[in-house]
Amino acid sequence: MILPPRVTLCEVGLRDGLQNEAVLLSAEQKMELLRLVEDAGFTTIEAGSFVHPKAVPQMAGTDALYTALRPKPGTVYRALAGNLKGVERAAACGCNRIKLNVSASRGHNLANLNRLPMESIAGFGDCVRFAKEAEIEVSGSISCPFGSPWDPEIPLADVRGLVEAYLALEITEISLSDAAGLANPRQVYELCRLLGREYPRVTWWLHFHNTRGMGLANVLAGLEAGVTRFDASFAGVGGCPFIPGAVGNIATEDTVYMLREMGVETGIDLDKCFNVSRRAEELIGHKGTSCLTALIK
Amino acid sequence: MILPPRVTLCEVGLRDGLQNEAVLLSAEQKMELLRLVEDAGFTTIEAGSFVHPKAVPQMAGTDALYTALRPKPGTVYRALAGNLKGVERAAACGCNRIKLNVSASRGHNLANLNRLPMESIAGFGDCVRFAKEAEIEVSGSISCPFGSPWDPEIPLADVRGLVEAYLALEITEISLSDAAGLANPRQVYELCRLLGREYPRVTWWLHFHNTRGMGLANVLAGLEAGVTRFDASFAGVGGCPFIPGAVGNIATEDTVYMLREMGVETGIDLDKCFNVSRRAEELIGHKGTSCLTALIK
Repeated sequence: MILPPRVTLCEVGLRDGLQNEAVLLSAEQKMELLRLVEDAGFTTIEAGSFVHPKAVPQMAGTDALYTALRPKPGTVYRALAGNLKGVERAAACGCNRIKLNVSASRGHNLANLNRLPMESIAGFGDCVRFAKEAEIEVSGSISCPFGSPWDPEIPLADVRGLVEAYLALEITEISLSDAAGLANPRQVYELCRLLGREYPRVTWWLHFHNTRGMGLANVLAGLEAGVTRFDASFAGVGGCPFIPGAVGNIATEDTVYMLREMGVETGIDLDKCFNVSRRAEELIGHKGTSCLTALIK
Repeated sequence: MILPPRVTLCEVGLRDGLQNEAVLLSAEQKMELLRLVEDAGFTTIEAGSFVHPKAVPQMAGTDALYTALRPKPGTVYRALAGNLKGVERAAACGCNRIKLNVSASRGHNLANLNRLPMESIAGFGDCVRFAKEAEIEVSGSISCPFGSPWDPEIPLADVRGLVEAYLALEITEISLSDAAGLANPRQVYELCRLLGREYPRVTWWLHFHNTRGMGLANVLAGLEAGVTRFDASFAGVGGCPFIPGAVGNIATEDTVYMLREMGVETGIDLDKCFNVSRRAEELIGHKGTSCLTALIK
């Protein structure tokens, strides 16, 4: 079993983790979590999203969070931007790393963003031009390339089309996001190998949910396909508000533990991950889905 | 990713799943679950254990269960036997498949069986001789070859020693049981590959718990190493009563789902697995740990 010696994890709890939570956290509470995340050793952190506050109320304070943020040198504080308005908000509050998002599932894109995937893509040109002016680096995310409740089978041509649309805009950092938790390990391995060979310019990220228990098996499959960048969420909180039944992201602490046990370096302090998760669970008022955090209590 | 086209699953919920539960099920209730398990398509079922009723009260009714059992042709109804007394009980109630057990972890064997691993092994000769007379087929289990809370590192020589002890008794069907849920996928892959090469006569089983969230990732690693026999428990119930913090076995339905999605045949009807799990959860009075069963409710 050949695995990469070292991987980069992005803590997405502050964005994907919290956005499905009923309890709205204050900017101060988010900052407290962000400091704990930094303290655990993360150098890539997804801190929020610039989307319409009515669509995702938890993310309304993202501007305030970035305004208050004193960035640690060498750390990337990434945020999701829904459209040009989002990129403008990012620029206004000093966010210099944004991630665009489009779904490979037509049904998911319509439910989530109220437009067709190609309509989303058509808007990205303006976003990228504005971002360049504002010295904001842009990456891209492709949701549901492994299937969604609306579209169980996603044609490979559709995924390729989105990769190529991003590349046409000089976006070379792309995340494959299994927001629906439908990916299986063989599929992950095969798609990652195929896309990795076809698009060697791309730096790939993988984003898994543990909806059907396959989250860490999918990380393993991604590692075996040579992917070295993965998202995870403290305490395993999260779930897409626009996908019925979607539950938590893979838990950061469970992911770090598995990688550590397999001898794959992450640079993350596992014990300090529990500090983040315990505090996050206190703030949201319920337990997450991490096996390890449940175990050590 | 090369995976076997077909695997055999053993439903162990009636033994490992229930043995940690506070609510004691009647023989009738166990029989009801067993019929549902058969109906789902299982042809290998671990139905109970012949151990001291004071040590594992839930298993006290195993004799009654086997006495009442009308076996389906072609189905294996396996039970754990702790010692010669257990094998005698098996013979008396018509059980014709037993599994012996010893831990590769000295600390676990002492806690679980109150003797050293080699003392356990020393008693197996009499068990096998009696079983042969009684026309009972015998398989063997090695607990904690991947580590235990007492012995985080298990020397490979110790695992080899137990395999060879079984082989010396003509026991060629051996289960590697991660009762502590400490195995990681790389370790599973490497140990299975190594033992598979060194002992080609052996038919291997793998038994995982999802204590740290790695259960299905370990199944994947086992498949990649060529193993085609796995235990799983309905609803993900279970946990060794003698290992602190041990939680559920991998859930049958989650395992069947992952295998099906990867195109690996099991012969099991996933929808009927939910019938077993829902009824098991009703009988034990709480939910299990299956992601899928939680999702579809």
